Order: sequence, then C-alpha cells, then structure tokens
Amino acid sequence: MKLGIEYRHLTEAYERISPHIHKTPIFSSSYINGLVEKKVYFKGEHLQKTGSFKARGALNAVLSLKEKNPENSGVVTHSSGNHGQALAWAARYAGMKCTVVIPSNAPAVKVAAIKDYGADLVFCEPNPMSRQETCAKISAEKNQTIIPSFDYLDVIAGEGSIGIELMEQVPDLEAILVPISGGGMISGICIAAKAVKPDIKIFACEPKGKDLEYSLKAGKPMWPDPPKFVDTIADGLRVQRLGTLTFPVVLELVEKDVFTTSDDDIIEAMKLVYQRMKQVIEPSSGVGVAALLSDKMKKLTPDMKKVGVILCGGNTDIEHLPWMK
Amino acid sequence: MKLGIEYRHLTEAYERISPHIHKTPIFSSSYINGLVEKKVYFKGEHLQKTGSFKARGALNAVLSLKEKNPENSGVVTHSSGNHGQALAWAARYAGMKCTVVIPSNAPAVKVAAIKDYGADLVFCEPNPMSRQETCAKISAEKNQTIIPSFDYLDVIAGEGSIGIELMEQVPDLEAILVPISGGGMISGICIAAKAVKPDIKIFACEPKGKDLEYSLKAGKPMWPDPPKFVDTIADGLRVQRLGTLTFPVVLELVEKDVFTTSDDDIIEAMKLVYQRMKQVIEPSSGVGVAALLSDKMKKLTPDMKKVGVILCGGNTDIEHLPWMK
Repeated sequence: MKLGIEYRHLTEAYERISPHIHKTPIFSSSYINGLVEKKVYFKGEHLQKTGSFKARGALNAVLSLKEKNPENSGVVTHSSGNHGQALAWAARYAGMKCTVVIPSNAPAVKVAAIKDYGADLVFCEPNPMSRQETCAKISAEKNQTIIPSFDYLDVIAGEGSIGIELMEQVPDLEAILVPISGGGMISGICIAAKAVKPDIKIFACEPKGKDLEYSLKAGKPMWPDPPKFVDTIADGLRVQRLGTLTFPVVLELVEKDVFTTSDDDIIEAMKLVYQRMKQVIEPSSGVGVAALLSDKMKKLTPDMKKVGVILCGGNTDIEHLPWMK
Repeated sequence: MKLGIEYRHLTEAYERISPHIHKTPIFSSSYINGLVEKKVYFKGEHLQKTGSFKARGALNAVLSLKEKNPENSGVVTHSSGNHGQALAWAARYAGMKCTVVIPSNAPAVKVAAIKDYGADLVFCEPNPMSRQETCAKISAEKNQTIIPSFDYLDVIAGEGSIGIELMEQVPDLEAILVPISGGGMISGICIAAKAVKPDIKIFACEPKGKDLEYSLKAGKPMWPDPPKFVDTIADGLRVQRLGTLTFPVVLELVEKDVFTTSDDDIIEAMKLVYQRMKQVIEPSSGVGVAALLSDKMKKLTPDMKKVGVILCGGNTDIEHLPWMK
C-alpha cells in the first residue's frame, strides 16, 4: 500500500534539523534489565530541546516552510502542551513569528513556558471547536501557516528522526515501544526503523481509554465521532483519534497488539525511572515504561532480548508529581 | 609541601576501577548557561553505579585490598548513606564479605538499599561513638578491614578519578565547584585537576553551618571538638571535620573562599536541575549548583567562562522531595 509519507521525507527532514537539535542519548539500567530479562535501550527525548520530541517535528515544519517561502508571516497552532512549546521555540530559532492558541483553562505553568519561548498567545474557549476556529481565524487574519500537532507531513517526518538515530545507536533492536496519541511520532519511527530493519516490531503504548486496538484489529477507525479526550494523567496522550496521514501508517506498520496502561501503572513506571535511572520524565514517557514492565510484554515478546523504549518527554510539574498526595 | 596522597595513586586507582564503573556523562543546559553567563559542565555522578560518586572510592578500596590479600575476610564500615551502599555494592562485585554498621534510627529506605546490595547489617546506637565502637568490634571479631568513608587513601584515590575523567572531557575548564563533607572527593579531584592544569581553581561548596572557611583562612582546624553534625537537608554533607589526610590537601589546593548554601538555596538549585536538565539529584548535589547560582560566584569568578560542577549523587527519596509540603 502506498502511504502518504516515505522514508526519503524522513532523511530529508533529518538532514534539515540535525544541526539544530540534540542527538539524544540512550539510557540503560542494569536493574531494569534484570527485572524484564531483556536489554532495554531508553531513548532520552526528555533531554531534547524544549524537553520533548516535539521539537523535531516543529523545527522541521518551520524550516521547511522557510525554505519554500522565506517571506512567510509565521506559523500558528493550538496547543497548551509540548507542541505549543516546541513550535514557539522552533519559530524563534528560525526567526519567524508564531502564535499559539491556548484554552483559557490551561495551567499557568504551561502558559508561561510557551510565552517564555516568545510566541504570541491567544486564549480561546476550552473546547476542541473553539481551538480550531480560533486557530483558523488567526491563520486567515495574520496569514500564518497552521502547523498541526501530528497530522502533518513535515511534523511526522521530523519526528521520524528519532527512529533514524535510534537505529544508528542500536542497530540490532528487535522491538520499539512507542507512546501514542495522534500517531505522529510512532508513524515516523516505524517508517524509519522498518526501512533499515524490516522485521523489527513497533508496539503502540496507550493510556487506558484510548482503545486503539479495536481500530487496528478492525482495520478502520472505531473511535467515537466526535472523538473524546482520553481521561489520563498522561497529558500528552489525550487525543483519541489518529490522523488521516497517521492512521494508514499505523495500520500498515504497527503491531495489532496494543499496550494499554492505567494511571497507577504509569505512576509506578515513572517512579522506577526517577529512582533507578535518575531521569525526570513526564507521564507520557511513563506509558512506554509501564508497557515494558507489563505481563503482556512478557507474553508477547518472550524471545526478544533487545528492546527500545521512547522516553518522549520530561515536561512535568515537579511541584505536583502524580504520586504526591 | 608533601601531601599524603599523590597523582600516581589516582592514576593507579583509575586503571583499577575504570573497567567496572561508569564514565559518567557531562550535562549542560543552555538555560543555565544563560543565567550565569558561563559555559557550565555538570559531571553526572548521580548516574554512577549505586547512584553516587562513592562507588569509585569504595570499589578502589575493595579491589586494592583484594590484590594485597586475596584471602581477606571482607570489609566493614559505618554509614547509613551513600558510602554504605557503595561499599556493599563494591564488596559484592568483588566477591567479598561486607558488614555495614547502621544507626538504629536510619530511614528504612536507606537500610533497604544497603541490604539489597547483600551486605550484613548491624545496628548500633545513633551516636558517633557507638558507630565507631561497633565498627571496631566487628572488625576485630570478623577480621574485616575497616573502610572509612573519606579519610582513607584508597577511597580518596578512587574518587580522584572523577577529576581525571572531567579534565579529559573538558580540558580547558577554569574552575570546578565540588560539594564538601569530609573532603575525600574534593581532595581527589583537586590533585587530579591540578596535575594536568595547575592554574585551575577548585572551590569547596558546603551547607550552612559547616564553616570551613574559618579553618581554611586560619590554616588549622577551627571546627569544634568533638565536631558536631551539620544541620542541613544535604544529608550526604553532615560531617563537619575534615580528615587527617584530607585537610592538608584541601588547605594546600582548594581556594580559601568557600561557597556556603542554605537549605532554601539547595532546594531552588535542585528544582532548577529537575526542571531544566531533567535530572534527579540529591540535596548534596544541589549544594554545588546553588554555589554556581550565587552572587558570590559572580563576584569571585567574573572572568571565568568554563566551569565544572560535580553532581555527586542522585539518591533522594522521591516520595519526599524537600519541596513537598
């Protein structure tokens, strides 16, 4: 099947962004290796610029736009999270204007982070319709290009650079566990990894309530219309639907067995990483670690000895870690 | 002046231990660089085996003893902290017996960590006299060699390997900020660093109440006799006195200006590292970071542009971080 995005999009993106982003390190823990009886390679995207992998996609989108149209009027998106921070950072880095539409109920700490990167902020009603409408209105008014958080070729291609790097760092990986929300990161990673190692298995790791496995096994979208937000502490993974670009890729290249993790699983996984690896990760990263530690992992991958886990971000409010009462 | 420890002790130690320990990475943060208007190189000893630099000294002591006496009966120390964990780990690694004397009021989480590394635990009254007496008694009964936590040549020599590595990683450093307690780590680091770059400045960073500057400026010990424990959240830095081996080294090679940090300074520094560098450090590591951020640093080092900071450990109870109410 012909997918909307190809490996060459990723290599072009990596060439474009690699001088400006971190080649993030691989972490390992002999304690965790012992627990799961595998060698585990944690890809440290929490140490990426802006504290999450989103910097890769946002920077590729911004630089790509600048190449095509050096006289552009900037970019706009709606996000109160890592994509908003990343786009604000990327635009400032590229010397471009950026507007971020933020729901009026977004936490002050997140608003401050986006503002710190120099973006113009516009507040909207806290619902998906208002976010999209406000974003479209600003795009029309300011002639700014909308950069969506996942369903956008340049974003996916930029995020695929995680997979390019990881396969260079650990060429004989047998599987990669990837947290999933809209599917941008996992689409990029599986195109990259399967290009160099076609038999590698890519597993999606989701918060409970997303129910992606129904859609993958049915071969068509089974999420509600309109899609709801998933109720989870993994605030980076609340989107239930996949995109028109990402769903076909995920359907084609990602394993049909999905790892589903509860808030309690996520918290235990986070604590393990804080205590044993001394790394500050956000709940979304904990989803991949929780999958690694699950009984399902043992059952699905008894013979796999080398597994990658994407620690996708580290932007969590350390004044209110989820295990604090 | 002839000191009791020389650079060759350090290079021998490094040759002995380097196949078995982590060459810890250097971290940096463009945000923190901007704050202090310097390039700062954080040496990540919180990622060392057992979660602190103590693994270097303990392993060197244990392996050195084993070389001299393969038929030894093991080692003993008194410590409820990082040295206890490190010695227990090192002894198990070397296939030797180990006893750790622990005050009866030590936190359960620390006791469990030492026990996990397979040491025999012996509890004593929670005062310095009982600790030392119990340790001596066990040494006599079991014929185990006492490995003190800092005033011991093999321990200092092993810890000096931090300085050897750091100067290889960043050869043109102008200063290093080192948390100080009994002075083992800083003694090793300044011997290593000054051997390759004699004009480098080594600064001691202490918790408030240690008052080391009086002794350094007087040129003789000014701490009370018997020395008290310093009242600080930096639980790895509670020893007030320096040792008979370490004090002469510190007096000769460390700057007379000492950085003194309050609990509030330490907490702010820790939070900055958690938020911006995504690293889990313990309060003792925060002491060096707090010194970096201080006004005194600006005044003392206006022209220095490349500074190292030792993140000496990451063993903190993440259920009870010091900023949690």
